[in-house]
Amino acid sequence: MKARTADRAPDAARPAARYGRPDGWRGALYDLIFLSDSAAGRRFDIALVGAILLSILVVVLDSVPMVRARHTDLMHMLEWGFTLLFTAEYVARLVCVRQPLRYATSFFGIVDLLSVLPTYVSLLVPGSEALLDIRILRLLRVFRIFKLTLYIEEYTRLGEALAASRRKIMVFLSVVLMAVLILGTVMYVVEGPARGFTSIPTAMYWAVVTMTTVGYGDITPQTTLGKAIASFMMLLGWGILAVPTGIVTAEMSARRNDRRRGPARLPRNCSACGSGGHEGRARFCRDCGAELPAVMGKH
Amino acid sequence: MKARTADRAPDAARPAARYGRPDGWRGALYDLIFLSDSAAGRRFDIALVGAILLSILVVVLDSVPMVRARHTDLMHMLEWGFTLLFTAEYVARLVCVRQPLRYATSFFGIVDLLSVLPTYVSLLVPGSEALLDIRILRLLRVFRIFKLTLYIEEYTRLGEALAASRRKIMVFLSVVLMAVLILGTVMYVVEGPARGFTSIPTAMYWAVVTMTTVGYGDITPQTTLGKAIASFMMLLGWGILAVPTGIVTAEMSARRNDRRRGPARLPRNCSACGSGGHEGRARFCRDCGAELPAVMGKH
Amino acid sequence: MKARTADRAPDAARPAARYGRPDGWRGALYDLIFLSDSAAGRRFDIALVGAILLSILVVVLDSVPMVRARHTDLMHMLEWGFTLLFTAEYVARLVCVRQPLRYATSFFGIVDLLSVLPTYVSLLVPGSEALLDIRILRLLRVFRIFKLTLYIEEYTRLGEALAASRRKIMVFLSVVLMAVLILGTVMYVVEGPARGFTSIPTAMYWAVVTMTTVGYGDITPQTTLGKAIASFMMLLGWGILAVPTGIVTAEMSARRNDRRRGPARLPRNCSACGSGGHEGRARFCRDCGAELPAVMGKH
Amino acid sequence: MKARTADRAPDAARPAARYGRPDGWRGALYDLIFLSDSAAGRRFDIALVGAILLSILVVVLDSVPMVRARHTDLMHMLEWGFTLLFTAEYVARLVCVRQPLRYATSFFGIVDLLSVLPTYVSLLVPGSEALLDIRILRLLRVFRIFKLTLYIEEYTRLGEALAASRRKIMVFLSVVLMAVLILGTVMYVVEGPARGFTSIPTAMYWAVVTMTTVGYGDITPQTTLGKAIASFMMLLGWGILAVPTGIVTAEMSARRNDRRRGPARLPRNCSACGSGGHEGRARFCRDCGAELPAVMGKH
Repeated sequence: MKARTADRAPDAARPAARYGRPDGWRGALYDLIFLSDSAAGRRFDIALVGAILLSILVVVLDSVPMVRARHTDLMHMLEWGFTLLFTAEYVARLVCVRQPLRYATSFFGIVDLLSVLPTYVSLLVPGSEALLDIRILRLLRVFRIFKLTLYIEEYTRLGEALAASRRKIMVFLSVVLMAVLILGTVMYVVEGPARGFTSIPTAMYWAVVTMTTVGYGDITPQTTLGKAIASFMMLLGWGILAVPTGIVTAEMSARRNDRRRGPARLPRNCSACGSGGHEGRARFCRDCGAELPAVMGKH
Repeated sequence: MKARTADRAPDAARPAARYGRPDGWRGALYDLIFLSDSAAGRRFDIALVGAILLSILVVVLDSVPMVRARHTDLMHMLEWGFTLLFTAEYVARLVCVRQPLRYATSFFGIVDLLSVLPTYVSLLVPGSEALLDIRILRLLRVFRIFKLTLYIEEYTRLGEALAASRRKIMVFLSVVLMAVLILGTVMYVVEGPARGFTSIPTAMYWAVVTMTTVGYGDITPQTTLGKAIASFMMLLGWGILAVPTGIVTAEMSARRNDRRRGPARLPRNCSACGSGGHEGRARFCRDCGAELPAVMGKH
Repeated sequence: MKARTADRAPDAARPAARYGRPDGWRGALYDLIFLSDSAAGRRFDIALVGAILLSILVVVLDSVPMVRARHTDLMHMLEWGFTLLFTAEYVARLVCVRQPLRYATSFFGIVDLLSVLPTYVSLLVPGSEALLDIRILRLLRVFRIFKLTLYIEEYTRLGEALAASRRKIMVFLSVVLMAVLILGTVMYVVEGPARGFTSIPTAMYWAVVTMTTVGYGDITPQTTLGKAIASFMMLLGWGILAVPTGIVTAEMSARRNDRRRGPARLPRNCSACGSGGHEGRARFCRDCGAELPAVMGKH
Repeated sequence: MKARTADRAPDAARPAARYGRPDGWRGALYDLIFLSDSAAGRRFDIALVGAILLSILVVVLDSVPMVRARHTDLMHMLEWGFTLLFTAEYVARLVCVRQPLRYATSFFGIVDLLSVLPTYVSLLVPGSEALLDIRILRLLRVFRIFKLTLYIEEYTRLGEALAASRRKIMVFLSVVLMAVLILGTVMYVVEGPARGFTSIPTAMYWAVVTMTTVGYGDITPQTTLGKAIASFMMLLGWGILAVPTGIVTAEMSARRNDRRRGPARLPRNCSACGSGGHEGRARFCRDCGAELPAVMGKH
C-alpha cells in the first residue's frame, strides 16, 4: 500500500515522466528541467515560476496606456527577453526527452509553444491593420501561468472534488440555461426592444446577469409586469443557485468524512464471533476478544 | 431487487407508456416515437432533440434585428418548416396511442400543441396591431425545450432533492416576502417618490433587488437614513438567504449519506418473524430474538 | 411521550392560552377568536388572514400614483372599512380574555393596536404638513402581517435553527462591521470626497454594498489603488460571507441528523451482555438475542 | 482534564500574562489594566471599550462635512481628549509590566501606539499640503477597535475554523486569480479600451467585480461576444465561488460533530496494555484482546 503510493506520487508531480528519460548529458538536462527532486531541479523550477510571473507582469503593465507611452522600449526589450528565454527552454525540453513529438503534442507542449509564438508572429505580420490580431495572439501568453499548476500539489484534490460532482453540475447548468432561455424570451416580449431588451440573446444575457445576482444595471426592467417577473426571477435564481453550493458542499463533507473514516471501511470481520466494522488499527475483536485477521497481508 | 429496478427504470424513461400501445403499424410507430429502446427509436429521439434545438435557435436569431432584416425570407421559411414538422409529429403521436385524449391533455401533449399553434394563429389574425400578440404567443415555442427533460434521467434526482425541501422553501419564501413588504414600505416612507421609490410596489421591487444581492443600481437610497436601512437590509438579506443554501445542502448531504449507507440496509430479514431492516452488525432479530442469517456468507 | 407532545402542540398553536379563558358567552367568543380547533374558529382564522392580506393590498395599491388618482374615494372607504373591522376585532379580543391588560401589553396586542391607530391619527392631525407623518405611521399597518406567523406552524422550526446559531451570527456580524469600518475608512482616504466617498459613513455604506456583493454602482472606486483595494474586499467579502451559510447549513444538517437518529440515542443497554446503542424500536439484543429493557416504561 | 481546561482558559482570556506581573502598586495596576477577574478590572475593561467606541464615533463623525463645519472645535477637543486618555493608558501599560519592551513590540502594543500617534504627528507636520498625509495616518486610529477582539472569547472559535481551512482557501484564491487574469485579458482583447476596458488591470478589476457577483455596472460588456463571455464567466464564477462556502461549511460541520461525539472518545483505556481511544461499544481491547472496563458503571 505504502509502496504503491510512493510510486504514484512522484509520477503525479512530474507527468513528463512518460516522455522518456534519455542517457548522458540529455538525461542530466532532463533531470534539471522535468524533475524537481534534486536541489538544482528545484532551483530551476523556482526560477522558471519567477520568470513566468515576471513575463505576465510585463504583458499586463504593457497594456496600461501610461506605462506603454513612457517605457515603450523597455517593455519591448523585456518582451523579447522573456520570449527568447522561453524559446530556449522550449527547445531544451524538446532536446532532452526521448519522444519529443509526444511532448510537443501534449497539453503543456502546446501551451509552451503558444506562449512564445505571438511575439514572433508580430514580426512576420507587420502593419497597422494586423495590430489587433497580434493583440489577440498575445493574450495566449497568459497561458504560461498554467504551468504553475504543475508545481502545487493541492490543486489536484480541489479538482477531484469538482470533477466528482461534474455530472450534477452539468445537469444543473442545463436547467439554468433552460430557465435563462424561457425567462429571457418572456422578458423580451414583455419589455421589448425599446427598453433595452433589443433581442432574445440580449434578454438572455440580462437573465444570466440577474439570476447569478451580478446585476450590472446596464439593462433593467421598466414596466411593472417586467419588474414583477424580474423579482420572481431573482428569488428563483437564488433558489436555483443554492444548488451548486449544495453539490460542492455535500461532496466536500463526504470526502472529509471518508478520509477520516477511510481505513475503518475495510471488511474486517472477526473469524471467531463474526462481528464486523472493526477499526483499521484494531488487532483484537472488540466483541469477543479473539485476534482479528491481519489487514492486507501485513505482519 | 435487481429485477424490480430493471422493471421500473424503462417506465421512468418512457412515461408515455400509460397512453397505451396499440398493435399493428401503429404499434411500430409507437415504438419509434415513444420508446427509445430500439436503434431506430433512439435515432428518432436524437433527431427530434436536434430539430427542437434548431427551431429554438431560429426563434432566437429571428429576434436579432440585424438577422431579421437580412434573412427575413429564410427565417420565415425555416419557421414554417419546423412548424409543419412538429405538426406532423404531433399528429403521429395522436394517431399511434390507444388513448389520444389522455395524451392530448397530458402536460407534454399541451406543450406539443402550444409549440406549433403560434405560427398558425399568426395566419388567421393578420394586421399590424396583432403583431404584438403574435409575438407573445411565439414565445411559447420555447416550451419545446421542455421535451428535452424527458431524455436525461439525471434531472429526476435533482428534482427530488428540491421537492423534498419544498415545504421549507415555501416557508422561507413567505418570510422573505414579509421582509420585502415591510422593508419596502419603510424605504418608500423614508426615501419617498422624489428619489425613485415611486410606490410601495416599486419599493418592494427595490427590496428584492437588494436582498437577493442583485443590486442593479437603477434605484438607490439617497438619504443617510435610507442608506443605513439599506445596509442593514443587505446584511439581513445575506443572513436570510443563507437559509435556502442550508436547506438544499442539508438535503443533499443526507441523500448522499443514505445512498452510501444503502448496502447496510440490504434486506436482512429474520427467517423466524420476517421483520427486515436490521443493522449490518446485528446477529439476533431485534423483534423476536431469533438468530439472523449471516451477512455475505460469513461463519 | 405521545401524551406530552399532544399537550404541548396546541399550546404552541394558540399562545394566547395564557391570557385565560373566561366562562359563558365570552368563553365562546374566546374559542372563536383565539382557538382554531373548532370549525367556526378555523373559518374565523381564515377570514382574518384574508382580511389582513386584502388590507395590505389596499395600502400597497394606494401608494401607486395612478391608482390613488383614479380611485381616491374607493381607497379611502376600503381603508376605513378595514380599520373599523380590525378595531372591532381588537375590542372583541380585549373583551373575551380574563386578563385584558396582559393581552394588550403582549407583542401581538401592541401590533393589533398599531395596525389600526394610524388611520385614526390621520383624523386628529389634518393638514398638508402632517401628511408625511401620517404616512410614516401608516407603514405600521403592514405589521398586521405579523399575525400571519401565528397560523403557520413551520416557522417555529426555521426560527429555532436560526436562534440556535444566534451567538455565532452575532460574532460574525461584528467581524463584518469591523471590516466595513476599517475598509470604509481606507477607501475614504484613498478615493476621497471628490469621487463619491463624501464621508466615512458613506464609505461604510459603500463597503457594505460591496462586501455583500450587492454592488449598486452608485459609488465606485475610480483610482487604481481604490480598484485594487475594492477587488481585495470583494474576494474577502465572499470568503467572510461564506461563514453565515456555513453556520446555518451546519446547524440544519445537525438538526436533521438528530431528528433522524434521535430515538436511537436513548441509553438502551442489554442487561444480559451489556452491549449498547440499540435502535429505539429494537426489542431484542442484536448481540446476544436477550430481551431488551422496555423504553420509558412502555408495555 | 477539567483542571487543565480551567488552567488554560484564563490564560487565553488574558494573553498579556506573558509580559509578567510585578509586585506592589504596579501589580495592582497590572491587575486593573490587564486582568478582568476583579470587579474593578471588569469596570476598567468596560470603560475602555466605551472610550474606544466613542473615539471611533468621533473620527467617523468628523469626516461628515456638515458635522465638521458646525462643530470643528468640539471635534478637535474630543479628538485631543481621547488621544491624551489613550496615551495615559499606553504609558500605564508600559509601567505596570515587568517586560515593557515585550509588550511594546507585541501586536497590541504596536496597535496601542499607532492609535495615538497620528494626532501628535499632525502637530509636528503642519501646513496645507500635509493635510492628506495626516488623514492617511488618522485612519490608523480605527485599529483601536482591534482591542475589542480581546474581550470576546467567541472570536477564537470562528478564527480557528477559518485557519483550519486556510490552505484550501489559498489554493482556491490562486485558481480564482488565474481565472481573473486570463478572462480579464480575453475581455480586454475582445472589448478593447474604447468600451471601458482601458487596460488589463482594469479588465481584471472588472473580472473580479463580475465573478464575485458584485456587478457595479461601471464597466459592462458592449459587444455580443463580450456579453457571451461575460455570461459564461458569471456562471463559472458562481460555480467557483461555491467552493469557499463548501470549504467553510464542511469545516464547521466536522467541528460540530467532533464536539458532539466528544464524550464517546472519553478515555476508555485498557487496564492491561494502556491503549486508549476505544469505541464506546467495544468490550475488548483492540490492541491486546483484554476485557475493557465497563462504560459508566455498567454490569
